[in-house]
Amino acid sequence: MIVPLTPLDFLERARSLFAELEAVVDGERRFTYGSFVARCHALASALGPLDGARVAYLSPNTVELLEAYYGVLLAGGVLVPLNIRLAEAELQAILDDCSASVLFVHPSTAQSLVAPRTITIGPEYDALLAAHDGAFVDRVVDDENAVCELFYTSGTTGMPKGAMLTHRNLATHAVDSALTMACTHRDVVLHTIPLFHVNGWGTPHWVTLLGGRHVMLPRFDPFEVLRLIEAEGVTRLHLVPTMATSLLVSEALRGHDYSSLVQVTVGGSPPGPQLLAELEDAFGCEVICGYGLTEAAPQVTKALTKRSHDGLPVEEQRARRATTGLPNVGVSVRLGDDGEILVRSNHVMAGYWNQPEATAEVLVDDGRWLRTGDIATVDGEGYLRIVDRKKDLVISGGENVSSVEVEQALCAHPAVLEAAVVGEPDARWGEVPRAFVTLRPGAAVPLADELRAFVAGRLAKFKVPRRIDVVGDLPKGGSGKVLKNELRRLP
Amino acid sequence: MIVPLTPLDFLERARSLFAELEAVVDGERRFTYGSFVARCHALASALGPLDGARVAYLSPNTVELLEAYYGVLLAGGVLVPLNIRLAEAELQAILDDCSASVLFVHPSTAQSLVAPRTITIGPEYDALLAAHDGAFVDRVVDDENAVCELFYTSGTTGMPKGAMLTHRNLATHAVDSALTMACTHRDVVLHTIPLFHVNGWGTPHWVTLLGGRHVMLPRFDPFEVLRLIEAEGVTRLHLVPTMATSLLVSEALRGHDYSSLVQVTVGGSPPGPQLLAELEDAFGCEVICGYGLTEAAPQVTKALTKRSHDGLPVEEQRARRATTGLPNVGVSVRLGDDGEILVRSNHVMAGYWNQPEATAEVLVDDGRWLRTGDIATVDGEGYLRIVDRKKDLVISGGENVSSVEVEQALCAHPAVLEAAVVGEPDARWGEVPRAFVTLRPGAAVPLADELRAFVAGRLAKFKVPRRIDVVGDLPKGGSGKVLKNELRRLP
Repeated sequence: MIVPLTPLDFLERARSLFAELEAVVDGERRFTYGSFVARCHALASALGPLDGARVAYLSPNTVELLEAYYGVLLAGGVLVPLNIRLAEAELQAILDDCSASVLFVHPSTAQSLVAPRTITIGPEYDALLAAHDGAFVDRVVDDENAVCELFYTSGTTGMPKGAMLTHRNLATHAVDSALTMACTHRDVVLHTIPLFHVNGWGTPHWVTLLGGRHVMLPRFDPFEVLRLIEAEGVTRLHLVPTMATSLLVSEALRGHDYSSLVQVTVGGSPPGPQLLAELEDAFGCEVICGYGLTEAAPQVTKALTKRSHDGLPVEEQRARRATTGLPNVGVSVRLGDDGEILVRSNHVMAGYWNQPEATAEVLVDDGRWLRTGDIATVDGEGYLRIVDRKKDLVISGGENVSSVEVEQALCAHPAVLEAAVVGEPDARWGEVPRAFVTLRPGAAVPLADELRAFVAGRLAKFKVPRRIDVVGDLPKGGSGKVLKNELRRLP
Repeated sequence: MIVPLTPLDFLERARSLFAELEAVVDGERRFTYGSFVARCHALASALGPLDGARVAYLSPNTVELLEAYYGVLLAGGVLVPLNIRLAEAELQAILDDCSASVLFVHPSTAQSLVAPRTITIGPEYDALLAAHDGAFVDRVVDDENAVCELFYTSGTTGMPKGAMLTHRNLATHAVDSALTMACTHRDVVLHTIPLFHVNGWGTPHWVTLLGGRHVMLPRFDPFEVLRLIEAEGVTRLHLVPTMATSLLVSEALRGHDYSSLVQVTVGGSPPGPQLLAELEDAFGCEVICGYGLTEAAPQVTKALTKRSHDGLPVEEQRARRATTGLPNVGVSVRLGDDGEILVRSNHVMAGYWNQPEATAEVLVDDGRWLRTGDIATVDGEGYLRIVDRKKDLVISGGENVSSVEVEQALCAHPAVLEAAVVGEPDARWGEVPRAFVTLRPGAAVPLADELRAFVAGRLAKFKVPRRIDVVGDLPKGGSGKVLKNELRRLP
């Protein structure tokens, strides 16, 4: 028997098995799976049969955005979650690129965008659901390879490209990722990452599938995150290093009980082993690194230890958890000749929307492998270690300088909170490394020379940044990832 | 990207990530994943490209049989595991039905079967692997819907039928089942159920996928099972009620430490809540019922409690765990008009080998639903309860009598170990229930009248068996399931 793979079956499973369980917490609002699923069907009914039309969504993490992950698909539409940090011109360009026929906007976001139909979250949305209360939309997915989500991802240059994810991509990704992490119905996931950013790491699907609890977080605020972990009994959350750092330096850190936490994952960019150790000490649970990208829906690896490591000293276990990790269930990884990570998986996108050339550049070898643009090494136990983004490697006098390695050396200094390293043009060496750092609260401002000397004690001479700027803030994207292109443009 | 779903990817994952971990324990023999995978490839190389040819396997649970689950598929063949309890004539009929081109036989099994090529486990098999030591067979699965296993299942009448399982059936079943049960790489599974019987419940695949440990058990022996749980740190095992009972009455029960056990599952036929409670008390872990059938690869349900049950008294939690359960991840269940369980899932077979008519009888509604022949009810929380096999219902004076219900009433008597109820022809009522019971060791033999009075205090009058025979043993099939057809033939 062949049953088309689709995340819509996860919603139906939740409806039939978990109706009485709490599904979503969004501030003061709480919804059972019974009411959440009913709202998804009301939304689908309100949107009417869409026949593949694109539905764009501009909102921070709210229950309404979560409803769109199912309601838009139930209506037969393609969901296009938008990054609220983009400029209006960029957002409009995306709407035009995918010819979105409907746009949902949250009142806190850009209001002047143009789409054939615009629906505002709040009274307008509520009235729409109320008008379709009790509706049940019987959507049959005939083709598991039909596109149902479009995630725009910013390249280094030019227009963001829309990664087309199919029902099969999303369904296999959810099941494989949940199995990799041993998730269960007891999981309570705090959505720290915006769902519009590489799918909030696939959580809208697997949490629903298993009947776990979603805790929405509209904006990353360390006080609120730390409070919610205790108040809602959060078991899992995902952080990027800058988020992790902000929790660790928060005055509220010592004020809560974190015993509900089972696992914290860190992704986005490689955190140093020191950050990972600090997190484990602060939260008293396992912290593992992970790696993914929009085109892979997104999870690729998790740095889980193996049973053979159980007897090792904690430092050696942490050393494994601080790597890029092992491929997830359902994911094959190999390294290209230049060390580039190549991914083969049912989770990988069908291609970029309307961009066959850009698609052919990343889906290579007859479409069998995805090029990630990340350079890594692999050790004898199978653990990957990302050396750098291919495009972020600094090539100085013919030597490769890993910006990640230099950043981690800088972060080992007690005054440094965050570091970002880029290449700057140099007549003699081609490029030389240049660093930007932010400082821990209350730290004395170190001299650039002091930092250079500190790093010089740890790295080869050609890796030491010629310039180190202490800045108040680093420019960051939707998930908190540092925008290196903006740094490269600084004088 | 579409990557054909296949369990062969699980083997490749184990090879690349878990080579150094112990994979299989078979008596005195121990194999790492490195050596296990190498043996599978040597086997595939020895079999040569098979192009869909059937490879039959007649063996109790051994590492060699486990190797066949991957080696035969790597060679491009279709694995046909045979039930060692069948008579030689039945086995030969299966070999002829599927035109098996190769037959593996274990020295402990029938030796006079005829096949084009016969390979005996032991020195002959070892020499074969040695001759292909170091081989690596690069099998590319082009069609995930190609058949790769054939499991013969005995109906009530006539020839066993070969259920055709595809790569996609097996791959989705393994991932979905492991996720349902929250299995991990730390799991150590004791193969109590013969792998030739409804796939030993899918374990050859998911244990390998996650890098867990397989512990082989050639023959169910209570002493050996109880010893191995402690000696190997077993985390999971699967029992049918008759196996469970034999462990509970074993003199060795109190002699071991069972703290490694995470979960015991019970299937095959519905155990009473009392048996489940005794198992939980004896093993100190959660015991849950489950349900499956060969045609569904096989798992359909697991009687897991929900998080909303956490605060309930243990008796109420056990009452849920003693039901037939909730549908697994990846499985949809509905009840037909007569209460028959219908299953829709990617795990369901493609059909019966060379039997389009028998296939059309069970794959109904344009092949969208599998008829199971089991009658059940469903409660408000979604838990199924099997009332009876459709064919085992006793219909007395127009009333349905569930043989299961009567058996559970008999088993509540302190002297009764096992009970089996069938219908016997009656001129006035059409049928009346008739019971066969075995006794607990050392129990005083109760009078049939005493047992009838005991049951009459618990059941409606028309459900009380007219005859109750105390017997030394009940006739059982390969998995320990009582063979009711043999009981019906008794005078």
